[in-house]
Amino acid sequence: MTTTVTPSTESGIASTRKNLIDIDDLTREEILEILDSAEGMLEIASRDVRKTPALRGKTIITMFFENSTRTRVSFEQAGKILGADVINVTASASSVSKGESLLNTVKTLQAMQVDALVVRHPHSGAPYFIAKHADAAVVNAGDGTHAHPTQSLLDLFTVHQHVGDLAGKKVALAGDILYSRVARSDIHAFQKLGAEVSIACPNTLLPNEWKPGTRLDESSGFGGVNIAKSVDEAVDGADVVMALRIQKERQDAGHLPSMREYSDRWGINSKRMALANSDALLMHPGPMNEGVEISTDVAHGAQSVVEEQVMNGVAVRMAVLYTLCAPGRSSRLNGSSDEVA
Amino acid sequence: MTTTVTPSTESGIASTRKNLIDIDDLTREEILEILDSAEGMLEIASRDVRKTPALRGKTIITMFFENSTRTRVSFEQAGKILGADVINVTASASSVSKGESLLNTVKTLQAMQVDALVVRHPHSGAPYFIAKHADAAVVNAGDGTHAHPTQSLLDLFTVHQHVGDLAGKKVALAGDILYSRVARSDIHAFQKLGAEVSIACPNTLLPNEWKPGTRLDESSGFGGVNIAKSVDEAVDGADVVMALRIQKERQDAGHLPSMREYSDRWGINSKRMALANSDALLMHPGPMNEGVEISTDVAHGAQSVVEEQVMNGVAVRMAVLYTLCAPGRSSRLNGSSDEVA
Amino acid sequence: MTTTVTPSTESGIASTRKNLIDIDDLTREEILEILDSAEGMLEIASRDVRKTPALRGKTIITMFFENSTRTRVSFEQAGKILGADVINVTASASSVSKGESLLNTVKTLQAMQVDALVVRHPHSGAPYFIAKHADAAVVNAGDGTHAHPTQSLLDLFTVHQHVGDLAGKKVALAGDILYSRVARSDIHAFQKLGAEVSIACPNTLLPNEWKPGTRLDESSGFGGVNIAKSVDEAVDGADVVMALRIQKERQDAGHLPSMREYSDRWGINSKRMALANSDALLMHPGPMNEGVEISTDVAHGAQSVVEEQVMNGVAVRMAVLYTLCAPGRSSRLNGSSDEVA
Repeated sequence: MTTTVTPSTESGIASTRKNLIDIDDLTREEILEILDSAEGMLEIASRDVRKTPALRGKTIITMFFENSTRTRVSFEQAGKILGADVINVTASASSVSKGESLLNTVKTLQAMQVDALVVRHPHSGAPYFIAKHADAAVVNAGDGTHAHPTQSLLDLFTVHQHVGDLAGKKVALAGDILYSRVARSDIHAFQKLGAEVSIACPNTLLPNEWKPGTRLDESSGFGGVNIAKSVDEAVDGADVVMALRIQKERQDAGHLPSMREYSDRWGINSKRMALANSDALLMHPGPMNEGVEISTDVAHGAQSVVEEQVMNGVAVRMAVLYTLCAPGRSSRLNGSSDEVA
Repeated sequence: MTTTVTPSTESGIASTRKNLIDIDDLTREEILEILDSAEGMLEIASRDVRKTPALRGKTIITMFFENSTRTRVSFEQAGKILGADVINVTASASSVSKGESLLNTVKTLQAMQVDALVVRHPHSGAPYFIAKHADAAVVNAGDGTHAHPTQSLLDLFTVHQHVGDLAGKKVALAGDILYSRVARSDIHAFQKLGAEVSIACPNTLLPNEWKPGTRLDESSGFGGVNIAKSVDEAVDGADVVMALRIQKERQDAGHLPSMREYSDRWGINSKRMALANSDALLMHPGPMNEGVEISTDVAHGAQSVVEEQVMNGVAVRMAVLYTLCAPGRSSRLNGSSDEVA
Repeated sequence: MTTTVTPSTESGIASTRKNLIDIDDLTREEILEILDSAEGMLEIASRDVRKTPALRGKTIITMFFENSTRTRVSFEQAGKILGADVINVTASASSVSKGESLLNTVKTLQAMQVDALVVRHPHSGAPYFIAKHADAAVVNAGDGTHAHPTQSLLDLFTVHQHVGDLAGKKVALAGDILYSRVARSDIHAFQKLGAEVSIACPNTLLPNEWKPGTRLDESSGFGGVNIAKSVDEAVDGADVVMALRIQKERQDAGHLPSMREYSDRWGINSKRMALANSDALLMHPGPMNEGVEISTDVAHGAQSVVEEQVMNGVAVRMAVLYTLCAPGRSSRLNGSSDEVA
């Protein structure tokens, strides 16, 4: 896993945050502030009539250069509940096919008086490039193998709702960690709130210098992470078990055995969940490959909080969009959700 | 034509209706209640300024696994006039392509706090499956060869606007009835309001046990329907003539002669309309293949109510969405349209 | 370049304008009225909270039979700032693929109670055909090689903002003029406001009867336009330099040399901008092929108003939509933007 240069200083992202591109950019306090705001947003999103004028007169553009119904709809729903106008732009329908540069596409959308650009892009780092050239707030909705910060925030929020303070909690991540932007963002996020993170992953998907049975040091960019020898070891005594989607492309590249063998050796099932704490949470960022990285019974079982994650995703994205776009930009990340209702 | 098992009881659809999946599920009284509500909605939709806050703070997702501009736009327009937020999801852009199950797609959208899922799906029965697993109201916007209940409601509404009580009125359906979800839903709907239904259709498109010149008994699932020997016979003295779209796929499968021969033998034209009552209505669910199942002169002639059908479609869908999603779910199907304006 | 028959009289477009299809249809006074209205709209679009209820309860459908993110988003943003509901229809997702005629598609959308149809179509003249059959206002968002009137209006508005009265100003257009709907519309628009227009274009892209070094007479449909022998000549002393997108298809058809040679002979770069007035404006309708018809340094340089054009596009489209759709149709093109705020 390559370490990521945090370009906050390079691109002039100041203390009054304009963008949300990587969970690494946020301080522990900023994370807690967003989780706190999301609490209020969840209450709004759960009402029979879900609507606030908080972002009335604001425009949010979702720019998706990769398909993702769940993430796009989640942001669209979040923006609309807040009263913003949401405009969807997809890569296939965009001028990109006419050969216009990403830079010009961004400058063009920006010039149409946009408050936030929610960007999903197959290339790691694209949102940094966009943020550098846009006055609008840029929210990374997933870039390549790099980051997916609102996914991490909703994962943190979901765990926080169940266990309160995360300090000392044991979190196990199992699956295709190396190429997963969710894993990368989640590891940093959980550590920032004091959790102990273990990962379990086929050796073929680990960097050569990472050895199962060891604890990574700071030079790895993931200091303090335990690399378990097996899923059983990672899950043992865990408070949170997160199964990660296995990319079919990995298998095609010869990095993985058959799906059946993968499921046997690395999948999360009821036998393995029994090793975790009795009240452990089972999470998955979705979409799930049931029968591969997660068995159907646990995916829809009593410990699963997969649907809560989706619901919390709307609340967390409301919090992020409100923080970045609320009228009077000085209130960014200092905004109280009270003003919203 | 296969009879359809009405899964109302299986899936627990109760007297306070949560979904609209099949016209068969509705009682005569419920149908009349919706038509009554649609009357008020039509008045709202016809205003210079068309907007009510009736569904403000409600979210409607259109999930179209098949293309249909007219139906999707009609529902989107209906939802927006009622003040709801409408989010469009199409199959090609959805996670379905990542291999996620329909069940999980539904659970995911559901978890984003959605009030209604408007579903178009190529497989008959898919909306029942979805309704079973969703708390949101599910509206069938056409599933395979099964049903298209809002189309039937708008057809009923259109006739009702012109002739009042439908009892004893003669309705002729001509064309590709066997595979038409519109025909299936319309036959049941018109019969429920007391109309006499005749169908005219090439033998090659009829089930073997159905004989032209007979009247179907209850075991067919379409008891009381007359199978005419020719279009002329079906149309003779009719109050309503409905031409149905011929699917090009039928011809490719060898079920049909050339389009020209089809038009000669089964198409609705001015000569045939002359056999109907002088004030008979000409209907078509669209999109029309002019020159095939309907001639251009009658399609746009004085008896055609094709455009009224489209306009009424918005009003009927407003009535359905309001009935299923209005704040305070107890008012479902008991809501008066007065409260809306 | 073929002259265009103005079908205003044929299609019954009256003094109280229902549509905006070609800049040719507008009088000088109407153009100035729209520019004046756009001034107020720009103020609204530049606010921290951008929203007016001016078109609340109105429905605008964008019907794009060709991809164009920038134009579609610009219209969508304009409509939403004005409080209208905007519904997007694209050709690939439309019933057009089911073989429905354009006429019926239009009649269908129209019947859903639509106030404006914003149409982009690959065939010149399609919007006239649509306008003939629709009660809704029709706005041409680009049709074939014919016209793109809101682009011309935003170009005029942008120049007007910088230089005030356009009378006597020198405007140079360089590039693929023959097949450009932007060029066609812009030439007429700039001339109508009294500017002097010169064009520079490879001979292979000029009609046979047009000779470099001459001034076109009225029979050409572009009376008074100077055909320069070179870009240098056209740009010399210009107040406005507009680079036009070169279509890759032209090159494929053998009408053009290599992109590099094209850039050398016909591209706008800093050397050529030095020939224009020192405060000349550099414009481009976008999307830009940087390094071909425009060099990167001038595209993003101090004289470039390319991003202003995009921003002004939203304001101009707000003015057009408000003019055509404002409640109480008598106020069309007499509406003051004061009422909007």
